[in-house]
Amino acid sequence: MSQTILKYTIEDLESLRSKVPLVHNITNYVVMNNTANALLAIGASPIMAHAIEEVEEMVTICSATVINIGTLSEPWIQSMEKAAKKAVSLGKPLVLDPVGAGASNIRNAAIRRILDAGNPSIVRGNASEILSTLSSSGKTKGVDATDSSESAVETGKSLSKVTGGVVVISGATDYILKGTDSAQISNGDVLMTKVTGLGCTASALCGAFAAVQKDQFRAATSAMAVMGIAGELAKSKTSSPGSFQVAFLDALYELNADTIKQRLNAK
Amino acid sequence: MSQTILKYTIEDLESLRSKVPLVHNITNYVVMNNTANALLAIGASPIMAHAIEEVEEMVTICSATVINIGTLSEPWIQSMEKAAKKAVSLGKPLVLDPVGAGASNIRNAAIRRILDAGNPSIVRGNASEILSTLSSSGKTKGVDATDSSESAVETGKSLSKVTGGVVVISGATDYILKGTDSAQISNGDVLMTKVTGLGCTASALCGAFAAVQKDQFRAATSAMAVMGIAGELAKSKTSSPGSFQVAFLDALYELNADTIKQRLNAK
Amino acid sequence: MSQTILKYTIEDLESLRSKVPLVHNITNYVVMNNTANALLAIGASPIMAHAIEEVEEMVTICSATVINIGTLSEPWIQSMEKAAKKAVSLGKPLVLDPVGAGASNIRNAAIRRILDAGNPSIVRGNASEILSTLSSSGKTKGVDATDSSESAVETGKSLSKVTGGVVVISGATDYILKGTDSAQISNGDVLMTKVTGLGCTASALCGAFAAVQKDQFRAATSAMAVMGIAGELAKSKTSSPGSFQVAFLDALYELNADTIKQRLNAK
Repeated sequence: MSQTILKYTIEDLESLRSKVPLVHNITNYVVMNNTANALLAIGASPIMAHAIEEVEEMVTICSATVINIGTLSEPWIQSMEKAAKKAVSLGKPLVLDPVGAGASNIRNAAIRRILDAGNPSIVRGNASEILSTLSSSGKTKGVDATDSSESAVETGKSLSKVTGGVVVISGATDYILKGTDSAQISNGDVLMTKVTGLGCTASALCGAFAAVQKDQFRAATSAMAVMGIAGELAKSKTSSPGSFQVAFLDALYELNADTIKQRLNAK
Repeated sequence: MSQTILKYTIEDLESLRSKVPLVHNITNYVVMNNTANALLAIGASPIMAHAIEEVEEMVTICSATVINIGTLSEPWIQSMEKAAKKAVSLGKPLVLDPVGAGASNIRNAAIRRILDAGNPSIVRGNASEILSTLSSSGKTKGVDATDSSESAVETGKSLSKVTGGVVVISGATDYILKGTDSAQISNGDVLMTKVTGLGCTASALCGAFAAVQKDQFRAATSAMAVMGIAGELAKSKTSSPGSFQVAFLDALYELNADTIKQRLNAK
Repeated sequence: MSQTILKYTIEDLESLRSKVPLVHNITNYVVMNNTANALLAIGASPIMAHAIEEVEEMVTICSATVINIGTLSEPWIQSMEKAAKKAVSLGKPLVLDPVGAGASNIRNAAIRRILDAGNPSIVRGNASEILSTLSSSGKTKGVDATDSSESAVETGKSLSKVTGGVVVISGATDYILKGTDSAQISNGDVLMTKVTGLGCTASALCGAFAAVQKDQFRAATSAMAVMGIAGELAKSKTSSPGSFQVAFLDALYELNADTIKQRLNAK
């Protein structure tokens, strides 16, 4: 398994860099700049566009759409619904990042509405967000909140059944789940939690890989591998969060087959 | 006084880092990323959320709310009013940063509406903004504009009487005022004025310290001390603003009792 | 010609740094922070304000207004129209950056509406955006899309006739065009395309120079010269995009008559 993930990650990154896919993002104000820069650094071409009048056109010209609910409001939710519906109708990859799921009613309602509009090919969040996303889907009852990885994995599998797509649970170990398939990436560094929006960047990278790799489970696995390895490369340069953010973008740009081989910790 | 501020700043920073308080921000588009990163770097946990449907929930789950009017529009003002009212009703710390007060009618009106909705436990701005905030409060007449620090201090004291809370006037020397209490922090570096949004960061740090230290005068003083010292540490690494911004975040993360002892210039 | 551009660029930069002009920006969420920091680094004073209630006041107190349609929506378009109209009525410099022109109907419509509200003294975009802007103006027929620089120049000249102002086409070589006048700047580095929003920064710098130099053709030429040289200075420090973005801001702050003399490649 580990050797397969290694091979796929290297191939997918090569493919991403040669195809330079357009990735459409409806994302939050906090991370727009970093997300766009991360997509450029890894080799994709970002478009950030949220107006309801243009989201369908943007979905159409892009190879994947990433929806992130970090700083939502009603007009943005409507655009997200429209984009999700269009992406699914065109059979294009759709990534959902349910930021802050569970923290407010409008976030839970937004998740429900987006899932109703179109099932994401990939949902990525932390354990708590994945749990709240499953609750918000309205397709489950009696979910117990928990922080343990094992329980999160069961929750993720349940959510995967609901959406029919991939679910990624980020953490010290990232779990990539779809149906009975699962992979684990244990790269990265705890300093990544001290920089805002690196989870959002992970979701954007899922979109970039999903744009060039039809197998969405494989695409999400490659994306999380690249995230974690870039985090380690950045940590090797600095131990403080300001310079880490800069070094992380550099690492996305610099990483190659050799660094992936040296560092990938997958199973 | 200087020894007391030193002791309190060190204690409050320790408390902040051990409690990791949730700080709710309704802030401007320009600084959202930096503000979130500054809060993470100092040891807090930021939430940026502005939708009117969720601000009350966010105020409730957070330990302090920071309102910054840098890029306002009518829907945001309504959310700010609602958040201010909720924070005051729950007895939670509320910080107001009246960015660009006096530059337009809508800014002055927004300040008036926010003050009417709930008195901030801390208002932080530069001399001109504090003056315009006092004018906008509708509780004063015949204020003369001035840039001298001494006059600004009198203005700040008047505003403190109006709000019943702390007023911080940022500048080469920061004045922290409440009723008859006052403190001065003379740390920092002029290069801080060449990076956008460091004033906004100061307000966010006031929120972080206010979240863990009930005495809002003491909290604001600790926040301004930490800001100024981090600015000096960053300046010791670089003399240009791009790398200064990065070094400043690193400094917030790295600063400790020793660096505070070495550098604090307070009275 | 080259010597004249050299002389003017140095003089205009000196003038900019001594006057510290207020530059009003209605720009996109992705680049607000970087744009504000670039304006500060070069020596201007940025104001980011988009509320329809205040844009006329902001145009009035500022020395130039920059409109950038990167992440537009209907309320923002209305503010842009109002700001454009006010700027032209006051005879103030107005810069338009038609980000993503041609990518959606609402972008093309927005460009048409802004041009109808007030002719920009400077339009800056890449070849494709300038072409779409000309199409959107409704003042031309049968424009053929092309990426060749020569054709782009003819398109730019046509757009200049429509607006009566300067048109800047960014690329490996930047073309600055107005009526029969033209200049070329061949500075910069390809790494600039791997950092989001450096085109937006170029437009903001056009605004800063336009604020202090009445001759808008000369102002735009100086701005593009400074952009390209700062890009080269940044490249001399790093070859990766994260640290490049930081080094670029440092370079804007550090560049002076000597570095301009050493590096300017203009004709």
